Amino acid sequence: MILFTDPYAVRVNGFPCKDAKDVVAGDFFFSGLHMAGNTTNKQGSNVTTVNVAQIPGLNTMGVSLVRIDYAPNGLNPPHTHPRATEILTVLEGSLYVGFVISNHENKLFTKVLNKGDVFVFPQGLVHFQFNNGTNNAVALAALSSQNPGVITVGNAVFGSKPSISDDILAKAFQVDKNIIDRIQAQF
Amino acid sequence: MILFTDPYAVRVNGFPCKDAKDVVAGDFFFSGLHMAGNTTNKQGSNVTTVNVAQIPGLNTMGVSLVRIDYAPNGLNPPHTHPRATEILTVLEGSLYVGFVISNHENKLFTKVLNKGDVFVFPQGLVHFQFNNGTNNAVALAALSSQNPGVITVGNAVFGSKPSISDDILAKAFQVDKNIIDRIQAQF
Amino acid sequence: MILFTDPYAVRVNGFPCKDAKDVVAGDFFFSGLHMAGNTTNKQGSNVTTVNVAQIPGLNTMGVSLVRIDYAPNGLNPPHTHPRATEILTVLEGSLYVGFVISNHENKLFTKVLNKGDVFVFPQGLVHFQFNNGTNNAVALAALSSQNPGVITVGNAVFGSKPSISDDILAKAFQVDKNIIDRIQAQF
Amino acid sequence: MILFTDPYAVRVNGFPCKDAKDVVAGDFFFSGLHMAGNTTNKQGSNVTTVNVAQIPGLNTMGVSLVRIDYAPNGLNPPHTHPRATEILTVLEGSLYVGFVISNHENKLFTKVLNKGDVFVFPQGLVHFQFNNGTNNAVALAALSSQNPGVITVGNAVFGSKPSISDDILAKAFQVDKNIIDRIQAQF
Amino acid sequence: MILFTDPYAVRVNGFPCKDAKDVVAGDFFFSGLHMAGNTTNKQGSNVTTVNVAQIPGLNTMGVSLVRIDYAPNGLNPPHTHPRATEILTVLEGSLYVGFVISNHENKLFTKVLNKGDVFVFPQGLVHFQFNNGTNNAVALAALSSQNPGVITVGNAVFGSKPSISDDILAKAFQVDKNIIDRIQAQF
Amino acid sequence: MILFTDPYAVRVNGFPCKDAKDVVAGDFFFSGLHMAGNTTNKQGSNVTTVNVAQIPGLNTMGVSLVRIDYAPNGLNPPHTHPRATEILTVLEGSLYVGFVISNHENKLFTKVLNKGDVFVFPQGLVHFQFNNGTNNAVALAALSSQNPGVITVGNAVFGSKPSISDDILAKAFQVDKNIIDRIQAQF
Repeated sequence: MILFTDPYAVRVNGFPCKDAKDVVAGDFFFSGLHMAGNTTNKQGSNVTTVNVAQIPGLNTMGVSLVRIDYAPNGLNPPHTHPRATEILTVLEGSLYVGFVISNHENKLFTKVLNKGDVFVFPQGLVHFQFNNGTNNAVALAALSSQNPGVITVGNAVFGSKPSISDDILAKAFQVDKNIIDRIQAQF
Repeated sequence: MILFTDPYAVRVNGFPCKDAKDVVAGDFFFSGLHMAGNTTNKQGSNVTTVNVAQIPGLNTMGVSLVRIDYAPNGLNPPHTHPRATEILTVLEGSLYVGFVISNHENKLFTKVLNKGDVFVFPQGLVHFQFNNGTNNAVALAALSSQNPGVITVGNAVFGSKPSISDDILAKAFQVDKNIIDRIQAQF
Repeated sequence: MILFTDPYAVRVNGFPCKDAKDVVAGDFFFSGLHMAGNTTNKQGSNVTTVNVAQIPGLNTMGVSLVRIDYAPNGLNPPHTHPRATEILTVLEGSLYVGFVISNHENKLFTKVLNKGDVFVFPQGLVHFQFNNGTNNAVALAALSSQNPGVITVGNAVFGSKPSISDDILAKAFQVDKNIIDRIQAQF
Repeated sequence: MILFTDPYAVRVNGFPCKDAKDVVAGDFFFSGLHMAGNTTNKQGSNVTTVNVAQIPGLNTMGVSLVRIDYAPNGLNPPHTHPRATEILTVLEGSLYVGFVISNHENKLFTKVLNKGDVFVFPQGLVHFQFNNGTNNAVALAALSSQNPGVITVGNAVFGSKPSISDDILAKAFQVDKNIIDRIQAQF
Repeated sequence: MILFTDPYAVRVNGFPCKDAKDVVAGDFFFSGLHMAGNTTNKQGSNVTTVNVAQIPGLNTMGVSLVRIDYAPNGLNPPHTHPRATEILTVLEGSLYVGFVISNHENKLFTKVLNKGDVFVFPQGLVHFQFNNGTNNAVALAALSSQNPGVITVGNAVFGSKPSISDDILAKAFQVDKNIIDRIQAQF
Repeated sequence: MILFTDPYAVRVNGFPCKDAKDVVAGDFFFSGLHMAGNTTNKQGSNVTTVNVAQIPGLNTMGVSLVRIDYAPNGLNPPHTHPRATEILTVLEGSLYVGFVISNHENKLFTKVLNKGDVFVFPQGLVHFQFNNGTNNAVALAALSSQNPGVITVGNAVFGSKPSISDDILAKAFQVDKNIIDRIQAQF
């Protein structure tokens, strides 16, 4: 389950494996999760990931971590994890969070979370966190996969490369193409 | 794995099970998938589902079907299945289809599908089908879950009940709130 | 999850993987499922498979498709899928279908299926489809594995290479060896 | 994971669960696997099963045992386990064993096993054991499921209740209906 | 996946499920993880668990959290999680951590972790954390199960109810029974 | 799923796979499980393993076997299997067996097993077997993994390489360091 530089190394799940005798403690280690991420961006938030790409020993283990930083009014915008449920706890500040369940209810569940509160975002559902406080907020979250993936709705729908045609998106969202174009221009 | 009317029946995965001796062939049967769905709606498309809700014998079986009808210019708008990969084949007409991979590439893969063509939409990824022909189109698709779920991006993000606040969505999509309000009004 | 020609490529489940940046839409595509299979054989049926061997992007996805063609009186003879449940729908014609549950009941469940009917054959159970109509029949079926396997009972028991000894089969089926020999001669 | 007599007991996988405080060692216990099964039957073999039906504590545990007794010339006839791989070891005597792989190879793998030999029959494949010695033989086998199921090919194909029509079986095995009828009469 | 008070409620994995229409945000919520646990005990450590027992919405989700507090010289003594891998990050202070791999290597991997460091303890392996600093330490850890279980080696081996006989433990640890008795007296 | 000598062979789960056409019956075979293991050691017991390391065809199959020999008063000392449940049956002699459930109950379940008795040790729990008879005892056990792993508590805690510091173990077991040192000296 451990990273090799040899391109012909044994691999599991597409990630290379060390021979057991070559494994070292460092293969299970990562450092720096106490460092605030840079939130000077449009969304005012930043996600630091600690998954199998950072810790080779996580391969096949079915769990990973992220740290999320939020400036005041910072948003971790609506997104999904295609292969994981998320459980999040607030380390600092306060967050307004929510998720939306599947069709046809599309019911929104929300909660204001303060320090020490925990909330669960079930696998594959659209969810978001918003810093509704006046200070920075910090959350730590765990995901039920070593490689959970993340799909930010805005980026996937309006910012894909190449773009989804504005004809299609205008129909999907039932608005004029110029509105779609305006949104696409942001991504 | 079979439906009971007794509320205290044995259940697996939250679905009731019949005693093996009470199982009948009808527990594995559904009829009507040859019937065109009604596409006289804003999207010009219709999905008929055949999963564990329709066929109790599918419980724990990890597979289900859908039929999708498309009027000319009909769209099965961008959506995800939180618990399933989809494999689709075109029975009639022609479709322009696509999916977008996870952050940060957000790469769009598209293909024009004609009768007999098959395409795969991997689990949890945003995907769509658009009838780019002048006649009705029909597709049949299989999903790798008896209860795959579906999240239509527009409905989940702009049409949830209650609504996600327009402050949050304006920030997420980097546009004015009045644009968000206009989109929300469509759902 | 995508096919490579390099024999030293990264592999998952024994199938090679492309580097994400080299993936193309064609890795998720197959064409020709609208083409009738050739049913001029002893059984009067033909199965066209669309699984991980045809679509490399299906690897790890847990689903695949088949098209089955039946001449009048054509039979998809008793068989099992060792790694998948099957859900089948009739596109044209009419089929008499059935499956047998495990020991010791060995109960047979049957149904006549017409166009648009759907039926489920649970994982590993012996099942068959017979065209009981006067025209060709066509079915499309999905399986809960990208590599479901198929074991045709006749071929496996009476047509293996080398043969199972007729002493053993005579005992298993409680008939004279010359009857076994006659059946084996057909395979 | 433990048996309750209350019909409204909590259940997992359709089997009832005891409250943890009511569990006793007996819930994980079975006795009598040293007793020879009665092999005075047509096949000259007998299978004693120890799975979740006998040991409630096996529920969700993914493993079970069987003891198989064979008279001289006794046969455990061709069968499959729809939900399990089997690993067998010979305790007494000698066995000629085999399994057949999936279409289209249908290759037969065989081996003569003596005391202390071990052989693996992969999930869902047709396999058999035949006592090729002059004394009784005994095997112990483990299966990778607490509820593996067993499908004896002869019973499922020629002895189902009701019978599969002899028209269908005559076509499947490419022989006259009277041969099918003769085989069906044995089951 | 949500808690019901009705004893006859639908249950999954032995945990009751609410009907989807009765689910509320509180079913995915827990509060208090910012509160230091009481470390005035022999080990000088305390574990606060947030799993399916605290958050009913975690059922089937495959992930949970714990907070661990350590007094100076506090120890989270050698233990295993029978159903989960653990990924831990240090929120405050410094920890000396380690795990031991399976027989026959029994190799010990250790690391000193400071604030922001992350370490992985693979499923089922014996591991520990020791506060090697002069201040309190705090860690947050995620586990790859909604119900991971914990087996503290000392409690299980020397503190079970009833006790494992000192004959057996004296043999297991190759020391006199009076030493075993002395250890057992501590639990 | 079959062993190759070519270091660049296709691999699944880190084990090499043969091309299907190169597979032979020997890839599913092991011999010698009738041979008594050597119990002239401190514990008076011996475990012979038959897993994926001995039978390459077991890869991905989720099951394996062990034979355990016990001299009179022989002990298979407290241990866990991190990735498997065990089901054991007594072939000869008599065993006193037990397992301890998770915190905080740490309840010990025990049973005396005679020839033909079967007992289950759930995944990851500490368990042991002791020959309480005057003759040799022999057990055969199956495990729900092709690679179950084994962690002997004494070896992992007191015999790791390098050693866990006696400060830590003295605290964990609440005894003087000289007692820990004495135990460590045995391993």
